[in-house]
Amino acid sequence: MSFAAPSYAFAAPFQTPAASPIRSLMAYAMRPGSISMAGGYPAQELFDVEGLTIASTQVLARLGGCLQYSDIDGQASLKNELARLSAERGVVCDPGTELAVTGGSQQALALVSRVMLQPGDHAFIESPAFPNSVQALRYTGATVHPVASGPQGIDLEQLDEMAGRIRPKMVCVVASFSNPCGATISRERRLRLLELAVKHQFLIVEDDPYGELRFAGEHVPPIAALADGQARQWAVYISTMSKTMAPSLRIGWLVAPAEVRRRCVGAKAADDMASSAWVQEIVAQYLANGRYHEHVPRIRAAYGLRCDALAQALHKHLDGRVTFIKPEGGMFFWARLNGQADATRLLPYAIEQGVVYVPGKAFYADPAQADPHAMRLSFATMNESLIAQGIERLARALDACEANAPVSVSLAA
Amino acid sequence: MSFAAPSYAFAAPFQTPAASPIRSLMAYAMRPGSISMAGGYPAQELFDVEGLTIASTQVLARLGGCLQYSDIDGQASLKNELARLSAERGVVCDPGTELAVTGGSQQALALVSRVMLQPGDHAFIESPAFPNSVQALRYTGATVHPVASGPQGIDLEQLDEMAGRIRPKMVCVVASFSNPCGATISRERRLRLLELAVKHQFLIVEDDPYGELRFAGEHVPPIAALADGQARQWAVYISTMSKTMAPSLRIGWLVAPAEVRRRCVGAKAADDMASSAWVQEIVAQYLANGRYHEHVPRIRAAYGLRCDALAQALHKHLDGRVTFIKPEGGMFFWARLNGQADATRLLPYAIEQGVVYVPGKAFYADPAQADPHAMRLSFATMNESLIAQGIERLARALDACEANAPVSVSLAA
Repeated sequence: MSFAAPSYAFAAPFQTPAASPIRSLMAYAMRPGSISMAGGYPAQELFDVEGLTIASTQVLARLGGCLQYSDIDGQASLKNELARLSAERGVVCDPGTELAVTGGSQQALALVSRVMLQPGDHAFIESPAFPNSVQALRYTGATVHPVASGPQGIDLEQLDEMAGRIRPKMVCVVASFSNPCGATISRERRLRLLELAVKHQFLIVEDDPYGELRFAGEHVPPIAALADGQARQWAVYISTMSKTMAPSLRIGWLVAPAEVRRRCVGAKAADDMASSAWVQEIVAQYLANGRYHEHVPRIRAAYGLRCDALAQALHKHLDGRVTFIKPEGGMFFWARLNGQADATRLLPYAIEQGVVYVPGKAFYADPAQADPHAMRLSFATMNESLIAQGIERLARALDACEANAPVSVSLAA
Repeated sequence: MSFAAPSYAFAAPFQTPAASPIRSLMAYAMRPGSISMAGGYPAQELFDVEGLTIASTQVLARLGGCLQYSDIDGQASLKNELARLSAERGVVCDPGTELAVTGGSQQALALVSRVMLQPGDHAFIESPAFPNSVQALRYTGATVHPVASGPQGIDLEQLDEMAGRIRPKMVCVVASFSNPCGATISRERRLRLLELAVKHQFLIVEDDPYGELRFAGEHVPPIAALADGQARQWAVYISTMSKTMAPSLRIGWLVAPAEVRRRCVGAKAADDMASSAWVQEIVAQYLANGRYHEHVPRIRAAYGLRCDALAQALHKHLDGRVTFIKPEGGMFFWARLNGQADATRLLPYAIEQGVVYVPGKAFYADPAQADPHAMRLSFATMNESLIAQGIERLARALDACEANAPVSVSLAA
């Protein structure tokens, strides 16, 4: 006997689950022979397996002491290491009252969102942005307003005007090498953003997964590192080990004013009690071993070469047909098709040719504002030769698309 | 120059962070020579360090393949093992559509709460209950109503009456060896609870951390295992490795109707992207190695002896002065002082004597309903001799308390 599923009365943000256009591309990206510029994944072959194995083996020798329930805000060993690392980036904090370990930067953002936002509240996020960041804000029931972002990062004129009108509680940015744009906010504009935070009394939540992956240009400190006086009360800094150590650790952290951080820890108690103390000890040991500072320059150097290769290939095979600004760090190019073809129409041709990217529209909180000609190209996961080959394929795909050639691949809308 | 902290406009559930009366006792519980019956921790000396080391070493040999971003709902290896384990408990499910790996059972409860509840909604939880479970419900902004629970578990008459009136979306219970009561709901009453779920259209969320730790009496299947027909659509089962393998793994799981589970996975994407694939592989390997089924009987046997020792000591040293029902599994006794002394007034005397417990009132969602004479005594973390000694100390503390003797310890209210 079978029964029809009842109509569950889900909470409003979950009534119609959002599809994940990026995840749905993964099947194509994983096809043998396919060159994927679609993922937001770091380069797997660059993971420091040896260093992690050493740290893990050291922790195994004292495993009996790492298995019990642990402090919600994180292991003391790791909090101290992360406070040191944050201070090196200019974000000085007290690990006991201003820092907490989280399940990646995603959980850090989710926790801050949850303690600040409820239905009827407003939050701003740069647009385009990483869809899971938008979701973390939306799932609180608050209204999320996109603020246009370009090569300079978030539009501060628009932000100022909108903030005066809408009174957001939070403004979320990836200030260095943003996902998907690869854009970096300059020091002057970061200072201006801090002024706006004080003026409009909103928390700036800076997600900084890529900041250490600068391979060109001049260093710019995190926003929280530039905050003085009152502005310090409005700056939250979050970061992660996912792009420098490994995503599967699920270790990130937040640095926030004590009153905000205390509530985030309370939220985490009800969310998952703590991040794995075992894994935290491995990460702390890895940092204490000095492997982190040995390893990050390797990633930075490799990504720099890959970024150069992508820029060269775009010049060589698609000169005049795409526009882009070469990023100075991180993992992503934001490219724009100059012609009639839009990135969604091009995609099946690209897949047919064996190359995959993410159409830009996947990154707009408001689809009506999406730039149909934009695309995100990741250069992190392929070597230079594959990158060149991928862009050659993309050029062939664009030829076919512009010629309105028949195409064998059909994608769900 | 220093600035006063601004008044942040926190979301309503976070405006006044809840204190954790249990955590605040830990300082006393950790004092050298102190006997703690306060924690909800499993016995540390029983962790299968050898088995976990073996599994971890096996995973280290293939670590390079366990470091990348992974599926939100869990590693296939672990989902299959957990589906098998759930099926052994009578909860048969499709690991692809009805099961998801979570950050302990705490995250499972938080995810279900979040997809179901929003401000204006209602949820029921048995009372007394684990405070973090109450918080997971409250943090959604929904109203949480306690339903009285006793030696038989949740009061089904009261539940039926309240459900007709209040229309809750969720009802949360620990059906086997509850925390703090040690109570188990009988098979007949589980079936009746399923009828009520269909009648009132609420999800039963059964948190089952202790079900395998039965050392006396007759096995009762989980509620979801007893659900037939329409009732299956209203039964959610959640469990954890925290009490059988180790809390610091932070690995739990949920089994839910596909429509509910799908949204929980969407919520998890925005919460923490996934649980650590590395740890998931260790847990899957441990299960595949057969260590789990070898190890759980050891915990069960040890806890059975400790439970007996606690019952004997209560008879010997506090006969007639406390009332209790001996649990058939799990980790907790719920005891009630028969005389004038209440459990909060007794506590400083107990700490002075070197024994710590949690006053029962910490477990009531509505403090006005709290039984001031109740206390939770954990028997999990001490051997039989320490348990006997702890209760001897408690008896001395009760003498001093009833005699209104001066006491050196002073606790915050």
